[in-house]
Amino acid sequence: MENEKLKTIKALIFDIDGVLTDGSILPFDNGELVRIFNAKDAMAMRTAALHGLVTAIMSGGNTEALRTRCLHIGIKEENLFLGCRGKLPLFEKFCEDRGLKPEEVAYFGDDMADIPVMKACGYAVAPLDAAEEAKEIAAFVSKYPGGRGAVREAVEMILKAQDKWYFDDYTKVY
Amino acid sequence: MENEKLKTIKALIFDIDGVLTDGSILPFDNGELVRIFNAKDAMAMRTAALHGLVTAIMSGGNTEALRTRCLHIGIKEENLFLGCRGKLPLFEKFCEDRGLKPEEVAYFGDDMADIPVMKACGYAVAPLDAAEEAKEIAAFVSKYPGGRGAVREAVEMILKAQDKWYFDDYTKVY
Amino acid sequence: MENEKLKTIKALIFDIDGVLTDGSILPFDNGELVRIFNAKDAMAMRTAALHGLVTAIMSGGNTEALRTRCLHIGIKEENLFLGCRGKLPLFEKFCEDRGLKPEEVAYFGDDMADIPVMKACGYAVAPLDAAEEAKEIAAFVSKYPGGRGAVREAVEMILKAQDKWYFDDYTKVY
Amino acid sequence: MENEKLKTIKALIFDIDGVLTDGSILPFDNGELVRIFNAKDAMAMRTAALHGLVTAIMSGGNTEALRTRCLHIGIKEENLFLGCRGKLPLFEKFCEDRGLKPEEVAYFGDDMADIPVMKACGYAVAPLDAAEEAKEIAAFVSKYPGGRGAVREAVEMILKAQDKWYFDDYTKVY
Repeated sequence: MENEKLKTIKALIFDIDGVLTDGSILPFDNGELVRIFNAKDAMAMRTAALHGLVTAIMSGGNTEALRTRCLHIGIKEENLFLGCRGKLPLFEKFCEDRGLKPEEVAYFGDDMADIPVMKACGYAVAPLDAAEEAKEIAAFVSKYPGGRGAVREAVEMILKAQDKWYFDDYTKVY
Repeated sequence: MENEKLKTIKALIFDIDGVLTDGSILPFDNGELVRIFNAKDAMAMRTAALHGLVTAIMSGGNTEALRTRCLHIGIKEENLFLGCRGKLPLFEKFCEDRGLKPEEVAYFGDDMADIPVMKACGYAVAPLDAAEEAKEIAAFVSKYPGGRGAVREAVEMILKAQDKWYFDDYTKVY
Repeated sequence: MENEKLKTIKALIFDIDGVLTDGSILPFDNGELVRIFNAKDAMAMRTAALHGLVTAIMSGGNTEALRTRCLHIGIKEENLFLGCRGKLPLFEKFCEDRGLKPEEVAYFGDDMADIPVMKACGYAVAPLDAAEEAKEIAAFVSKYPGGRGAVREAVEMILKAQDKWYFDDYTKVY
Repeated sequence: MENEKLKTIKALIFDIDGVLTDGSILPFDNGELVRIFNAKDAMAMRTAALHGLVTAIMSGGNTEALRTRCLHIGIKEENLFLGCRGKLPLFEKFCEDRGLKPEEVAYFGDDMADIPVMKACGYAVAPLDAAEEAKEIAAFVSKYPGGRGAVREAVEMILKAQDKWYFDDYTKVY
């Protein structure tokens, strides 16, 4: 049944800090904020995009580095939402604009600001080191922390349920 | 009783290295020193500030990056003390200027230079990987290390005791 | 017998992300991508090169930092393949050009794009935190994760089997 | 007896990579190499220097960042040896020039290039994640890895044995 649920997912939305990163923020003197992403997460996200799943970002962060990184791992400009304040209305409009039912969307979040969307979406994923409140309402809690395997584990699981965990042509994925 | 104590806390003072960071210092050739902060700590500190608790920094470090980061996570200019040498007199003046009793102040510290203030304040918090001397005198030792959940755990606990662990308006917190 | 196998290895090829690094990618606002390498891995790779083993890189990544780092740890320009798309044909040409049999080559990989070469080479090595598919086909799975001891452990093991784990002249190695 | 040994130590020499850092090397496109130091190690090293112990660095690394960092944590210019190739002759001259017997010197090392000095000095210290060969000959193996508590633990132990683990004046230490 869990597996049936996973088969219906058409879009994956990711928070950044604590989900696609380990929560680390490195502030520099020039005001730049640097995060730590993970190569194996990127591989899974690119594979999902190549198989036609919508991959999207909703993050409070908003830097040029985030924009470039997200485009690099297969997020389309139209699905990249940085500098978010209040994610639920954004999520609702996101679904509406794309003709997606909320039940067809998986949301990957780890902290208080993610909870309204985690409740509204079809499949909420939380890393091992997410806030307790996020883990309590998640459909799936990864055995790995954010930025250290959580996104990879869950995306791989979803793609496997849909028979999409393969690479015909590595030159497209990597 | 512990809980009664937590209800009386009106101000939170944080050391930086080893408390708001994991102790990492990345020196660059141009002399810049970069630290690694944590996104979930920031969320808790902003929430405390929004609920009217005084949030302050007392650190020996003194860089433009620290100044910008601290302002970004809700510390007011007047509560930001960088380049500290000898924290106890500073702590005493801090309390006096703001009409705070030392018992109403929680101090988050991890090393020898923090100990005089940890003894003088109302509620001393130490991360799991703090110096032994700091952990011995702490009222609360986090089960997480500095920069990896310690501040989040303790601030969340204090705010919950005061019924302030909620977010009416995410646009203010994040 | 395992030991007999190790004695026949003449070349070591390394993937970068998740193998020579812990998978961390730090994107900067100017588009730069920074990775985290490990000093003890470098020591082992330099030692292998000094003893006449061919050491090579095959990575999808392609930055000036990677180029400089790889040359610094003893990789010759002609054995440095960055920006790889599809590693198997490259591997076959690599062996042919150097008169190496695939059985004489060890390949260090951690993710899906490495698997075709891991199957084709004589001795596939995977870090502890490699993708499951990579660990299943590896001849040796390190007890350490990528960037945290995996390469050091496996290279040391190979060099010891060949009586090459020594340093006559530290000035050449370090 | 161990304690008697610790009382006789007059100088502390530190390797950098894997000892004062966790072994991480972050190469940048401009050729800069960044390392990750630890704030609590720095506190202990400054305290040792303030109490009159000679603190010195012998590292193969050689960057402006290393130079600045080492001076910042209390190493005097004359005791700062970067770009070392072959540490044993350097160690012997170091002792001779300062009128120190090798038995009075503690050396903190983690890898093959450190071993000749670890054998020659009076008290060899190795982090938990040092090379096996280094741990075998060390008088003390820390329960913490390099850059994550090893130096702090061992320096603190030595200073305590000499009744020097205190701070009369924090403004000098931090």
